[in-house]
Amino acid sequence: MPVISVTLLPGYESDAQHRLVQRLAQTARSVIDASDAGTTVFIQEVSTYRRDGRVFEAGGAVLPSASEVVAQFLACMASRDLVAAQAFLAPNFEMVFPSGQVMRQLSELMAWAAPRYRRIEKTQMVYEESWQGDQTVVYCRGLLKGEWPDGSEFSGIRFVDRFEVIKGKLVRQDVWNDLAEMRAQGSQG
Amino acid sequence: MPVISVTLLPGYESDAQHRLVQRLAQTARSVIDASDAGTTVFIQEVSTYRRDGRVFEAGGAVLPSASEVVAQFLACMASRDLVAAQAFLAPNFEMVFPSGQVMRQLSELMAWAAPRYRRIEKTQMVYEESWQGDQTVVYCRGLLKGEWPDGSEFSGIRFVDRFEVIKGKLVRQDVWNDLAEMRAQGSQG
Amino acid sequence: MPVISVTLLPGYESDAQHRLVQRLAQTARSVIDASDAGTTVFIQEVSTYRRDGRVFEAGGAVLPSASEVVAQFLACMASRDLVAAQAFLAPNFEMVFPSGQVMRQLSELMAWAAPRYRRIEKTQMVYEESWQGDQTVVYCRGLLKGEWPDGSEFSGIRFVDRFEVIKGKLVRQDVWNDLAEMRAQGSQG
Amino acid sequence: MPVISVTLLPGYESDAQHRLVQRLAQTARSVIDASDAGTTVFIQEVSTYRRDGRVFEAGGAVLPSASEVVAQFLACMASRDLVAAQAFLAPNFEMVFPSGQVMRQLSELMAWAAPRYRRIEKTQMVYEESWQGDQTVVYCRGLLKGEWPDGSEFSGIRFVDRFEVIKGKLVRQDVWNDLAEMRAQGSQG
Amino acid sequence: MPVISVTLLPGYESDAQHRLVQRLAQTARSVIDASDAGTTVFIQEVSTYRRDGRVFEAGGAVLPSASEVVAQFLACMASRDLVAAQAFLAPNFEMVFPSGQVMRQLSELMAWAAPRYRRIEKTQMVYEESWQGDQTVVYCRGLLKGEWPDGSEFSGIRFVDRFEVIKGKLVRQDVWNDLAEMRAQGSQG
Amino acid sequence: MPVISVTLLPGYESDAQHRLVQRLAQTARSVIDASDAGTTVFIQEVSTYRRDGRVFEAGGAVLPSASEVVAQFLACMASRDLVAAQAFLAPNFEMVFPSGQVMRQLSELMAWAAPRYRRIEKTQMVYEESWQGDQTVVYCRGLLKGEWPDGSEFSGIRFVDRFEVIKGKLVRQDVWNDLAEMRAQGSQG
Repeated sequence: MPVISVTLLPGYESDAQHRLVQRLAQTARSVIDASDAGTTVFIQEVSTYRRDGRVFEAGGAVLPSASEVVAQFLACMASRDLVAAQAFLAPNFEMVFPSGQVMRQLSELMAWAAPRYRRIEKTQMVYEESWQGDQTVVYCRGLLKGEWPDGSEFSGIRFVDRFEVIKGKLVRQDVWNDLAEMRAQGSQG
Repeated sequence: MPVISVTLLPGYESDAQHRLVQRLAQTARSVIDASDAGTTVFIQEVSTYRRDGRVFEAGGAVLPSASEVVAQFLACMASRDLVAAQAFLAPNFEMVFPSGQVMRQLSELMAWAAPRYRRIEKTQMVYEESWQGDQTVVYCRGLLKGEWPDGSEFSGIRFVDRFEVIKGKLVRQDVWNDLAEMRAQGSQG
Repeated sequence: MPVISVTLLPGYESDAQHRLVQRLAQTARSVIDASDAGTTVFIQEVSTYRRDGRVFEAGGAVLPSASEVVAQFLACMASRDLVAAQAFLAPNFEMVFPSGQVMRQLSELMAWAAPRYRRIEKTQMVYEESWQGDQTVVYCRGLLKGEWPDGSEFSGIRFVDRFEVIKGKLVRQDVWNDLAEMRAQGSQG
Repeated sequence: MPVISVTLLPGYESDAQHRLVQRLAQTARSVIDASDAGTTVFIQEVSTYRRDGRVFEAGGAVLPSASEVVAQFLACMASRDLVAAQAFLAPNFEMVFPSGQVMRQLSELMAWAAPRYRRIEKTQMVYEESWQGDQTVVYCRGLLKGEWPDGSEFSGIRFVDRFEVIKGKLVRQDVWNDLAEMRAQGSQG
Repeated sequence: MPVISVTLLPGYESDAQHRLVQRLAQTARSVIDASDAGTTVFIQEVSTYRRDGRVFEAGGAVLPSASEVVAQFLACMASRDLVAAQAFLAPNFEMVFPSGQVMRQLSELMAWAAPRYRRIEKTQMVYEESWQGDQTVVYCRGLLKGEWPDGSEFSGIRFVDRFEVIKGKLVRQDVWNDLAEMRAQGSQG
Repeated sequence: MPVISVTLLPGYESDAQHRLVQRLAQTARSVIDASDAGTTVFIQEVSTYRRDGRVFEAGGAVLPSASEVVAQFLACMASRDLVAAQAFLAPNFEMVFPSGQVMRQLSELMAWAAPRYRRIEKTQMVYEESWQGDQTVVYCRGLLKGEWPDGSEFSGIRFVDRFEVIKGKLVRQDVWNDLAEMRAQGSQG
């Protein structure tokens, strides 16, 4: 238990169906302490589906994996391809980095970063998704490595980013990390 | 679309059933761009259920809301009731705070905090859950307020905590915040 | 074939459930030439039902049988209890009797009837319903008997009434009958 | 609510499936005051179906739309193509027109009509179906126009026809209209 | 896989439901090489059920376990309570014992047995059922012990009985055993 | 009642599906006194199926009909094709014939038979299966004909064989018959 049956219009690709059944199983197990062996999910494709006075010819589109969208955005940023990165952003995108000021342009971010590090790279990234219906929130955490403004190197500095993703577009990014903490320790040393 | 039917053994309280259907709807909508109006979830209670050679008399226990577990733990910590807070921790609990060192005892945390702030309080907390099957990860973010070691006050400092929750017990806590960043800004000012 | 499963919130009385399964079977057999023996309909009551962001506590109300509403209205009219009859009418009720003029008040009908017959009675009534979603149309046919204005009696005169019923209220009545035809034949005789 | 699942053998054309789901939704809403948005119907095609000791290879045939059968019959009658019209009739077909006499041959109808009008045409036809399982009853109403025996024209005269349709054949026709009423009014004028 | 859902009218006792789900799982696994862990069967009780023009108030009666019926009959025979044993027999009961002659009365059996053994007892009985729809066939096998006509004892002699059971009554019994084989061996010795 | 729905991964051949639905119907009717007309079984093929953390691409293999396996084995034995017969046996196969000794090799059986009959043939075979989950037991009964060691012929002698079949291989054979009984009668005559 439980047994979860999902009724869908036909046409969904295998990959989307796999994602759906795996996520539904995980979600059910967040509420009920059921073994994975006892958690069954299957998809039945209907022949004809009618709701609200209409017979539907096709179901809603498959949403891209929000984590993959974030990963692609971060890859563009890592390679400083701001044009490509911009394509992942919703028009009302905003971002908040340590210190808390709200920025809306990737170019603002460049300015914010300048006094903080000469270059930076995210490593060992792990993604976690929070499925919230109208949006999916992606948390990406890992370790930063790069170069301080004085040219000395750093690595292994913890970070976590939070992204709000709506229909495959990033709407908001929040960033936390230990850069200031570690910089302070460094300057104390 | 989709229509999701969940087959459960009887006996689950209304609250757990509500949580389950809401979460399954949210999860389905993380994969398929379906309207909320077109996303139907219902629970059917079976009369008799058999799997793996056994007839089950009752389903798995209801898990507590992981967010509520975290909220209760944080409330205990806020009131410095370490004994009560300890009751929420799994035996192998570990925590990582800014600077990255791994701590296992709440008392260690007290020592870690001493040079950083005289007192601290989490405010405007928002919880987000990532349902992962064997565990649920809870992200709690908000703003910190408190007093620096020198007695001056601070507030509005961003934080995010990440908790791994397994069967209602906290297994790990990771903490990020802008304290060092803001302290540095303060010292620069 | 077919097998029709209806998922309902609990709480519907047995009578409504019986009406529902019988009607669904009849309707399915209006499209598919299935034997009655091979047409199965059953109702499953769900434990929890969620759509459009809400968990529903109860399903929609049971609608009264439209034919019974019409029969009660006609009984009131037969006993000239216009007050009681009025209670079955929607505010925008209108009726069309032979000759085609639109009337809105039962009192108008009395005036219309005066030159046509001294008294009249519907007999051998048969009701047929057309299920149309937002409304149900009831056809009532049978034979009229009564007294012509000259005091002579008539009987066995065919009639059919058509009623539009929305949520248990009559919205429109259309009446056809052979009174004029028979009166003409009588006057020819 | 409700959610209606129809299990069918495969092979039914899309048009029949659409008719079926729409009708079942309408029918459910004749019993329960459910919104159209909340009324879901879908068809699941089975892989193998067994009842009464037999595995069925195909489901019952699709019945033609009873309203369309009636419309085609009336079109043949309108163009006085009695041979084509006859093809729509069951062997035991009978019809009852104003005055109430039972006729079995379309030629009888011609004789009945002769003294009543020189020519006649149905206009603004609206069809309504009553799904009754073994038969479907079709009501067709609208307005008559034509020419009186004296050559003067008439139009806008209300009529309603009732047809019993069994497996696509007309078994009975009952006709009511205001012709006599209007003729009488005309002769009074 | 597979997942088997059984829709029943309510009212079946837990024991019957358990028997049903266990048997259906076993049966499915006689056709498909599915693991027991992956074979799920559950029962859903319907609220209202309609077939063949009728709404059913209750499902078919629960049949007694055919093996238990046979075991009770054999216990009566073992204690030579022919009256009680007779109550398990259908009116057209017949039995065939080694040598092949058909007997209809338990008293005939006594005569048949007389020259073969002085007393006899079935031991270590194992029952197996063959579910055939209109009837269930029960095979009971085990070992015989008893006394030869000459007073010497025997034991460990293989037997198998086959019973046809229809609605809880025995319709036929066929008996095979090694008594003659062992008697022959004994007489050879 | 009952209505049994079987959810399978796609890919099962029609023959296996027919066997499955027929057997499930028979099995349900071994517990509930339901008419065959009222026992509906159908198979729904899922689009995607997930259990125990895995999405399954295909269901378990179809098992051969245990009765057919036994029939083929017996045909090989009838034609004394011991090599072919051996192919039907599991490595741990054992058999028990009248007198009760356990044999493991078909050649042992030849030795056992030598003093009992010169040749033998099974006729009028009827197979019955007992579905037990991990194994299916097949009972085959009928009549023996052949030649006694002295060359005289016999026929019409009752037998029953019991076979344990696991995944299409014979694991055990138990044999009972009236040969000794009839030989004894013959020698008495």
